[in-house]
Amino acid sequence: MKILIAQLNPVVGNLKYNADNIYKSAILAKQREVQLLLTPELSLCGYPPKDLVLSSTFIENSWLELQKLAKRIPKKLAILVGIVTKNYYSDIKGEKPLFNSVVLLQNNTIKQIFHKRLLPNYDVFDEKRYFESGKTSNFFELPSSSQENQFSRIGVTICEDLWNDQIFWGQRNYKNNPIEDLVKYKVDFIVNLSASPYIIRKQKVRESMLKHSSRLYQVPIVYVNQVGGNDDLIFDGYSCATNKKGEIILCTKGFQVRTEIIEYSHITRDLKVSFNKNSNITKEEEIWSALVLGLRDYAIKCGFSKVVLGLSGGIDSSLVASIAAESLGPKNVLGILMPSPHSSQHSITDARHLANNLGINSYMIPINNIMLAYDFSLNSLFKTVEIGIAEENLQSRIRGNILMAIANKFGHLLLSTGNKSEISIGYCTLYGDMNGGIGVIADVAKTQVFSLCNWLNRFQEIIPNNILIKPPSAELKPNQIDQDSLPPYNILDDLLNRFINHHQSIEEIQKVGFDYDLLYKIAKLIIRAEFKRKQAPPGLKITNQAFGTGWRMPIASHFELN
Amino acid sequence: MKILIAQLNPVVGNLKYNADNIYKSAILAKQREVQLLLTPELSLCGYPPKDLVLSSTFIENSWLELQKLAKRIPKKLAILVGIVTKNYYSDIKGEKPLFNSVVLLQNNTIKQIFHKRLLPNYDVFDEKRYFESGKTSNFFELPSSSQENQFSRIGVTICEDLWNDQIFWGQRNYKNNPIEDLVKYKVDFIVNLSASPYIIRKQKVRESMLKHSSRLYQVPIVYVNQVGGNDDLIFDGYSCATNKKGEIILCTKGFQVRTEIIEYSHITRDLKVSFNKNSNITKEEEIWSALVLGLRDYAIKCGFSKVVLGLSGGIDSSLVASIAAESLGPKNVLGILMPSPHSSQHSITDARHLANNLGINSYMIPINNIMLAYDFSLNSLFKTVEIGIAEENLQSRIRGNILMAIANKFGHLLLSTGNKSEISIGYCTLYGDMNGGIGVIADVAKTQVFSLCNWLNRFQEIIPNNILIKPPSAELKPNQIDQDSLPPYNILDDLLNRFINHHQSIEEIQKVGFDYDLLYKIAKLIIRAEFKRKQAPPGLKITNQAFGTGWRMPIASHFELN
Repeated sequence: MKILIAQLNPVVGNLKYNADNIYKSAILAKQREVQLLLTPELSLCGYPPKDLVLSSTFIENSWLELQKLAKRIPKKLAILVGIVTKNYYSDIKGEKPLFNSVVLLQNNTIKQIFHKRLLPNYDVFDEKRYFESGKTSNFFELPSSSQENQFSRIGVTICEDLWNDQIFWGQRNYKNNPIEDLVKYKVDFIVNLSASPYIIRKQKVRESMLKHSSRLYQVPIVYVNQVGGNDDLIFDGYSCATNKKGEIILCTKGFQVRTEIIEYSHITRDLKVSFNKNSNITKEEEIWSALVLGLRDYAIKCGFSKVVLGLSGGIDSSLVASIAAESLGPKNVLGILMPSPHSSQHSITDARHLANNLGINSYMIPINNIMLAYDFSLNSLFKTVEIGIAEENLQSRIRGNILMAIANKFGHLLLSTGNKSEISIGYCTLYGDMNGGIGVIADVAKTQVFSLCNWLNRFQEIIPNNILIKPPSAELKPNQIDQDSLPPYNILDDLLNRFINHHQSIEEIQKVGFDYDLLYKIAKLIIRAEFKRKQAPPGLKITNQAFGTGWRMPIASHFELN
Repeated sequence: MKILIAQLNPVVGNLKYNADNIYKSAILAKQREVQLLLTPELSLCGYPPKDLVLSSTFIENSWLELQKLAKRIPKKLAILVGIVTKNYYSDIKGEKPLFNSVVLLQNNTIKQIFHKRLLPNYDVFDEKRYFESGKTSNFFELPSSSQENQFSRIGVTICEDLWNDQIFWGQRNYKNNPIEDLVKYKVDFIVNLSASPYIIRKQKVRESMLKHSSRLYQVPIVYVNQVGGNDDLIFDGYSCATNKKGEIILCTKGFQVRTEIIEYSHITRDLKVSFNKNSNITKEEEIWSALVLGLRDYAIKCGFSKVVLGLSGGIDSSLVASIAAESLGPKNVLGILMPSPHSSQHSITDARHLANNLGINSYMIPINNIMLAYDFSLNSLFKTVEIGIAEENLQSRIRGNILMAIANKFGHLLLSTGNKSEISIGYCTLYGDMNGGIGVIADVAKTQVFSLCNWLNRFQEIIPNNILIKPPSAELKPNQIDQDSLPPYNILDDLLNRFINHHQSIEEIQKVGFDYDLLYKIAKLIIRAEFKRKQAPPGLKITNQAFGTGWRMPIASHFELN
């Protein structure tokens, strides 16, 4: 039996577009004599559809689109499509009104429906907001060979259904284990339709888990993941399959739309070894690929072909400009230099040098005159108070305004260039350098920014060397550098990782040997910056704990630090 | 048996402060010879604690604070305190690691723990993100009278536990009904510890539901609600109680901290009729009280005593200034007038007039010079493209910068003055008039803004009449008025209510008789403004569907409108 894995990139909510892509895969499947076509979780509406599913018209339109699709596809082909379906008895049973489902289309009809059983409701996931858990696991049967007298039994699971192996995790994450249940039905193999968002090195975890489960239950598993960026989430693809022995027999390339064919043999009752397309890439290449995809899809799915950003001559905007050039092509990237009297000369030369290396457009708009105009207007109100943060922020906000004016004027998407370290501690200006439609490196720590730039320069200088070696500075007052008020970035990032990604407290981190006063200072900065993060643009997520959808902190709160 | 209802206003996360307030209620209870003290849901940590509960130190500190509280309180008094507790077997059972609990403190010990059974996970509620449902309902017993040989059996429920009566709602919202279960235990009365956020006229629904349940099950219910603002949520209090006949026997004043005593008679086995403190207030007074409380608490809990806002001479900023003057005192409100060449003379005189009526401070900073400085700097880049939205937005953003500079300089909280109608359709400038720490009227439709202002003027002119009668205008270009590009606000608000608060589709609304083209235009505007709302400050919620926490829409999505 030939199986086609369609690693698709849906547009959330665009039912027609997504259905068309499934249809194209079906045509390809027929050409290649495939019996079973697999698409990702919620492939018809895209994942995550969020509150779109609260519209009953949206649910009804999805079903109509599915019926149309069923009529169009080649008759004998079996297709699994992900779709939100109604829970018809929810009012009587006191249940949620929807299911996260997979339907089996065959012979122009909707033959069978499967419901997701394990609903993630943590981090960025809100599935219990919308969906009721499926009560049981189920399977379907397809002819194993052309004689059509032998049938293979195929167990169906959806994403999280795979993620509850007590031995692998050392704990149960959910009350049920759909894999265990399907094995009791003596299924020949299990398919898993997923929309599993990228985080650094997550594929290694997925592969280990798949290998473990296949080996433990002696069952092949075919895992099909969505690919593409949807707001803050990047779906990396990397669809793969394991045989009974727990060997990876295929791994699809990540960060791109792919179709791959694998074969199930009813003689060996196992998947045949296929090609492993996934070369071992470095962590930096992986993050780079994720950010390039995330930015490209955000721009395109929002209807932008061009982007603009401020080029300060610093490392953050340099990295973002490089990502943008790769995502959308250098000619579609416009870098704006906005020197102030506090800018050093190298800021301009470094930024120009970068623009040149990347082949992007650049333009310079000094902000001195605008600063003077504000000073003049605010002078009588401000004269009694010493110059300080208000004036520093004002410079950043003048730049923010100029960038938004350009974005509005030419229909460009403004990119926000802040890194995770500065967003964590509020070392950024709301309505200033935080401005933008998308935070391209909002989940990338400053030390990671450096390693990405060094990796980018591995063959030739892309980021000018001077940008890499000069001390980071906001250049909002004379001779300012970040390390004036912050610990070295390697220490800061270690602390931030503990506080934010691991939700550790001062007491816990103190045990590792850090100074209490430093910890208290950093913790306070993190808490105080919550109001800024509340108003930040979506930031591309690459860690287990990004700000945004998966970070839900109160603002008007006095969380006692000790 | 005397029961004290403590309608408290906790600060989220401030365990010591909240414990102190519970302690003070306990001392009062002892003075008044009370046997049972009731506090709201999660009274020790405040509701909603959100992701603070992901910190194990926070959970441990809560428990330590509870133990300290237990040691301090008068011995014989029974107190119910709301607290997050650990689910110790979550790893083995595959459950969530926490419970939303109530503990009974008595004789300096923690005598009993009850877990919330029905966990809301819709709109602004994310309880399944953190908590496991309690499996059973339970009760405790207290001596009914001074002889101490008779005991009353008291059933304990937490907030949502009350909200699943199939007859009242016409459907089941959850699988279980804790009230029904407690009645089987023959409880004498039921207490309900709540943190039920305000929406317009919600108290009427709560009272109807309480009356229905008391009558149906012949059981008195004492409902204690949190009061106070926490970020976007306003808790209105209005704690109340019903007797067996389903009569309201007490209703506490709303929007303020209150303590009230009621009495349970073991002879009649019912609650005695007490005073109804809740005078019937108009819808406008109710909304006004909610917004005044919400703003005051946001400011104070964030550490601000003074606020600043832009005074355009329009109705929105006038209403917000009035709310601020009431919330924090007129002397703590600073209004900034920022006329441009497009501002009409009445904008200045009307704003001055308002400031005078309210007794707030005001200051004028014309923006002409700053506009010229931007024009000069952007001229060579912009000269080939016609003047348009970019220039209009720039004016709004100059004002936003000035306001933030003043906020930063003097440590004031900037108030965002946008109403729900304009935020719905994106008739507002990101990083411009959207700037602010809190959106005071972000959930108030334009037509409601008018009715609130008229109500405010019922005894004397507070909002100058000219502000009420002139046509609304953004004044960003010559002779601009809102109705140039929008339908009349009464029609617009009706449509927005259908699209947003009721999640209706174009098809559904068309059936009522609206023009398809108008519906399509408005729907498109709503969808396109999502990126702005993503970066909006928290907005005080007064409807069933506010933007913010309870509105989770994708941005990079092509939701097909028909």
